[in-house]
Amino acid sequence: MKQKIHNFNSGPAILSEEVFQEASRAVLNFNNSGLSILEIGHRTPAFIDVLQEARQLVKELMNLNDEYEVLFLHGGASTQFFQIPMNLLDRFETAAYTDTGVFAAKAIKEAKLFGNINVVCSSADKNYNYLPKDFIVPDDAKYLHITSNNTIYGTQWKVFPDANIPIVADMSSDILSREIDYNKFDLIYAGAQKNLGCAGVTIVVVKKNILGKVERDIPTMMDYRMHIKENSLLNTAPVFAIYVAYLNLKWLKNTGGVEQKEILNRKKSELIYAEIDRNKMFTGTTEIEDRSMMNACFVAKDEKTEKSFLEYCKEKNIYGIKGHRLAGGFRASMYNALPLESVEYLVRVMQDFESLS
Amino acid sequence: MKQKIHNFNSGPAILSEEVFQEASRAVLNFNNSGLSILEIGHRTPAFIDVLQEARQLVKELMNLNDEYEVLFLHGGASTQFFQIPMNLLDRFETAAYTDTGVFAAKAIKEAKLFGNINVVCSSADKNYNYLPKDFIVPDDAKYLHITSNNTIYGTQWKVFPDANIPIVADMSSDILSREIDYNKFDLIYAGAQKNLGCAGVTIVVVKKNILGKVERDIPTMMDYRMHIKENSLLNTAPVFAIYVAYLNLKWLKNTGGVEQKEILNRKKSELIYAEIDRNKMFTGTTEIEDRSMMNACFVAKDEKTEKSFLEYCKEKNIYGIKGHRLAGGFRASMYNALPLESVEYLVRVMQDFESLS
Repeated sequence: MKQKIHNFNSGPAILSEEVFQEASRAVLNFNNSGLSILEIGHRTPAFIDVLQEARQLVKELMNLNDEYEVLFLHGGASTQFFQIPMNLLDRFETAAYTDTGVFAAKAIKEAKLFGNINVVCSSADKNYNYLPKDFIVPDDAKYLHITSNNTIYGTQWKVFPDANIPIVADMSSDILSREIDYNKFDLIYAGAQKNLGCAGVTIVVVKKNILGKVERDIPTMMDYRMHIKENSLLNTAPVFAIYVAYLNLKWLKNTGGVEQKEILNRKKSELIYAEIDRNKMFTGTTEIEDRSMMNACFVAKDEKTEKSFLEYCKEKNIYGIKGHRLAGGFRASMYNALPLESVEYLVRVMQDFESLS
Repeated sequence: MKQKIHNFNSGPAILSEEVFQEASRAVLNFNNSGLSILEIGHRTPAFIDVLQEARQLVKELMNLNDEYEVLFLHGGASTQFFQIPMNLLDRFETAAYTDTGVFAAKAIKEAKLFGNINVVCSSADKNYNYLPKDFIVPDDAKYLHITSNNTIYGTQWKVFPDANIPIVADMSSDILSREIDYNKFDLIYAGAQKNLGCAGVTIVVVKKNILGKVERDIPTMMDYRMHIKENSLLNTAPVFAIYVAYLNLKWLKNTGGVEQKEILNRKKSELIYAEIDRNKMFTGTTEIEDRSMMNACFVAKDEKTEKSFLEYCKEKNIYGIKGHRLAGGFRASMYNALPLESVEYLVRVMQDFESLS
């Protein structure tokens, strides 16, 4: 018997029950082929169909125009931190980076190995709990790098900075969670394990015309052009992770697409932030105007309360509520697949905890 | 109803039915936690246990001494083609490479981006259908790179070349399929999707003392030392693929370990090669003394026979028997999890096909 758990984990994160059911069945018998999804060739027609449909769903859900290619790659977003400058930035060129969190800072560190990095803004002074507003993006930088949502500290760009240069965005934690104009970006990347699927695959959406403009030799596996040429089958693809992403994208489309998910995500985040602000035991840690719809971060009024709320959540089958080790406190991650009921439940648990104290 | 298929696919490849069953269950409810393996955090104690046990099983099954670290990485063996020279070979140093197949040649191509490559032997002259015997491995090269088993053309080193320098081996298609002294190697790598598990994770076994000896800056995700330091949790690990590898390693140990698998693999390969040599419709393509226990390659006597045997296999529920697009003909891949019965069945099908012709 599976007990009901409310999963607020920051990633890998909850997916819909029907995705779990279908993925589980495919491990035994994929598409009624008599074979497991784990033992079929990545170049078989059945899997090429999955890959092609997944690619098409990404294009459709993001409303991408024909200038874009959708790639399913290995290595996680952390590999993109160096793969992007390796492909886009020559040794003596400059790229503009925004320093708005731990992962943004990691992207900066890796990019420095490949060219000059101009950090155009930073919120490190206040433990990344806000997003910088007044800064200039230079017109002569090769590209601007931005992290659309800060998973660890819970900030999210509501309006993206103005830039006359290509924009590269790490959207690992909020891709397809809200309606934005994805065509404004020249490269978008996201580890799958939050809003897209399970861990083990990374989606890269790239405008073809920004590629092929650096002089360095790029290893084959790191060259986006090679992956485009081979339709994400340059080597053995992470078959199962792509299949789960495909199931999840299909689920997303069939349950109203990004439009409906944004409505739901807004409702969930309003509910939790209202409770954080009301409840005497807790305080939100993020600048109100920059609060993320995906990750709500808060702390308890003291250490004892923190410990005891963690214990209480455990008793109540609330999973993954502990804050990141760098941020402390609590974090409720509320990606697309987290039902409204789980947030309503957490709010009641927070209220009960307050009244018991 | 799942029909019985005999899966001779070259990879992703067959795993044992109990691995499929357990993996399928874990997608619904991992370790009776009420959560799917796809939604649990990669830093949770339950998954760290899986990772630690998987690492321990690799060490035990390979009889590795304490100088080795076992890493579970993203990117496939193709990423190792450049990651290895990036970590081990400085710009003006030389590494020795053996050119014994398509993947060996790819490894050479990528390594050339990082230093001087001395190709010490090649069997490209005869379409890689044999292994070179008389060649010298220079004592002053940084390392020797070897591909232990050629998946596409079906050759396998029975005795490894003598070398007084570190040996790096791509064992993607025969790791843990036979008893060899793994401690003779300084770095061993293998994509999981043949003998180790499903696609989406790569195992790297590395002797710590060969690392840290190059001058170039290495991106964090490409630096073996960083993965060692973080116990393969430098970023979000491919959780499910590691879990499947763990299940498969456990199955391997519980069914007699490498010793028993070698006996079985020998039996399977003797059976198929005997039939290839006996059957008038087929001819083996590989030098007899270099024949692989993993991948048996053969061709039909003419094009018409080739087509009609492929059709016949399809009717008989034999999957994955078509040769690689570069090699043509047929290939029966017989990794650890392929039961003897499947090879006996294929032999009968070959005999029936001959008598019907």
